Amino acid sequence: MLTLADIRAAYERIQDKINRTPVMTSETLNGLAGAQLFFKCENFQKVGAFKARGATNAVFSLTDEEAARGVVTHSSGNHAAALARAAKLRGIRAYIVMPDNAPKAKEASVRRYGGEVIHCAPNETARRETAESVVARTGAAFIHPYDNLRVMAGQGTTALELLDQVPDLDMILCPVGGGGQLAGVAVAAKSIEPQIRVVGVEPAMADDASRSFKAGAIIPVSNPSTIADGLRTSLGEKPFAEIRRYVDDIVTVPEADIVEAMRRLWEVMKIIVEPSGAVPYAGVPVALQKKASQRIGIILSGGNLDLDKLPWTVARDG
Amino acid sequence: MLTLADIRAAYERIQDKINRTPVMTSETLNGLAGAQLFFKCENFQKVGAFKARGATNAVFSLTDEEAARGVVTHSSGNHAAALARAAKLRGIRAYIVMPDNAPKAKEASVRRYGGEVIHCAPNETARRETAESVVARTGAAFIHPYDNLRVMAGQGTTALELLDQVPDLDMILCPVGGGGQLAGVAVAAKSIEPQIRVVGVEPAMADDASRSFKAGAIIPVSNPSTIADGLRTSLGEKPFAEIRRYVDDIVTVPEADIVEAMRRLWEVMKIIVEPSGAVPYAGVPVALQKKASQRIGIILSGGNLDLDKLPWTVARDG
Repeated sequence: MLTLADIRAAYERIQDKINRTPVMTSETLNGLAGAQLFFKCENFQKVGAFKARGATNAVFSLTDEEAARGVVTHSSGNHAAALARAAKLRGIRAYIVMPDNAPKAKEASVRRYGGEVIHCAPNETARRETAESVVARTGAAFIHPYDNLRVMAGQGTTALELLDQVPDLDMILCPVGGGGQLAGVAVAAKSIEPQIRVVGVEPAMADDASRSFKAGAIIPVSNPSTIADGLRTSLGEKPFAEIRRYVDDIVTVPEADIVEAMRRLWEVMKIIVEPSGAVPYAGVPVALQKKASQRIGIILSGGNLDLDKLPWTVARDG
Repeated sequence: MLTLADIRAAYERIQDKINRTPVMTSETLNGLAGAQLFFKCENFQKVGAFKARGATNAVFSLTDEEAARGVVTHSSGNHAAALARAAKLRGIRAYIVMPDNAPKAKEASVRRYGGEVIHCAPNETARRETAESVVARTGAAFIHPYDNLRVMAGQGTTALELLDQVPDLDMILCPVGGGGQLAGVAVAAKSIEPQIRVVGVEPAMADDASRSFKAGAIIPVSNPSTIADGLRTSLGEKPFAEIRRYVDDIVTVPEADIVEAMRRLWEVMKIIVEPSGAVPYAGVPVALQKKASQRIGIILSGGNLDLDKLPWTVARDG
């Protein structure tokens, strides 16, 4: 079980190792939404995503003895870079199991932080078995990307900052993939201000969280092809337990809305947000339809993507 | 002649009508440059560019009688949107003469702020004559995009904020097209802290400012095809007078460096900067080669560009 005390302890542990990210606003986007939107810019976080929070908390929670054997994870995304960076800060090794079709920007990022990339076939079994073999060989601590209480506690620190930066929020919209961030944010926000509505937003093409939330049991999704690559994964058990306890609703958004939301954030706010990061902004209309709100916190979870591949047609200029 | 007092008066006049833009930093980019870089994010300014400062100062400097007849300018770029917005704030009309090949994003932006777009052929003569005919017809005040002391004073407020936000700068890098911003920034910075080196950066393909600076007389450039569309224009006389007095150096950068700089800002800092806005960052290596510096202020002048056209090859994803 995750508690506010865990999240506060995580913040004490990591706050000098991460960015206190800014909250940005836009009159133009407020006008379009008919509400005041407060964008928590985790795309400006270390490694370009909120994952820096959880990975740093997990690595710095290890005993010296545990840490000396290094850490390992499987991730094709931001958790990979985040774990590599946290390990480097602690001066230990990080073994990152990545599918061989992972975006090259994310692999380069892992190497830049000194992480050791170990390729595997792009499926769950290969991933898990490869990570297990690294643990067997090295004794490294396995740090799951989301199904880990220390990771979840770290992700929850986003909400501690947001509530400190913006008073009187009515609602917080947070993306949901494995559920680590949504769980952490929900525990923190609801424990501090129970009247805040916490809503998860996920791609309709990867709607396992929404279906699981309604069913009261995890219903996994298999190989969803949503453009929001960070949200293709199914809910973890530990996050789901907290989500059931604290989250008010989970809504879904179609692919076209994700692309439009991402592009509008680029165009109007002049910030780079990855598709997964744009999902909660895409969810504003449906969330408002279900419950009127004036002041909405939106977690822009990350800004990492391959600029050679964009979800709209681009002509080459120059 | 432009003075610090003019710039301070401009700031009093406009500060509640513009954004105090943040200064961002990046350990990654500091490491690459071998210096501490302080990015003044005018891409987050109202209308997405520093031009909001000068246009707002010019519009709010008019007497009520002058203002009642509206304002007019010719601009295919950010000044157009900035003037339309300032006019809207004051409740007066703005006539914007634009070449018929202007980027559609910039034209849409003008209309969003209620500006009246008047098309003309894409050449200097058509532009000037069309603007003159609007003045003759309406009595509107002509607000030149850069060859105007009130506009220059407004642009100079960028430096007031930067010096307030970052102590002990050694150098400021600023893009130079018509020279309005460079002139304003140089007057402000040198008047407050004379030891700061102020350097203009321009595309090698539009190097009129560099050549004019060396020659001591304006040498215009004709139809340069640099990707930095905001810097294609030649130096204005009023800005040039201040640039000769206050600027230490003007350096040039090749097109490939501009594209690389822009892309790196997108990738590492997660912010959208237009090609012209990336020019001063592209100039860091050559500026450092000419004069070692530890703490460099870099004016990211704007973030407006057509996302359907980018200076690298992009595959469509999804």
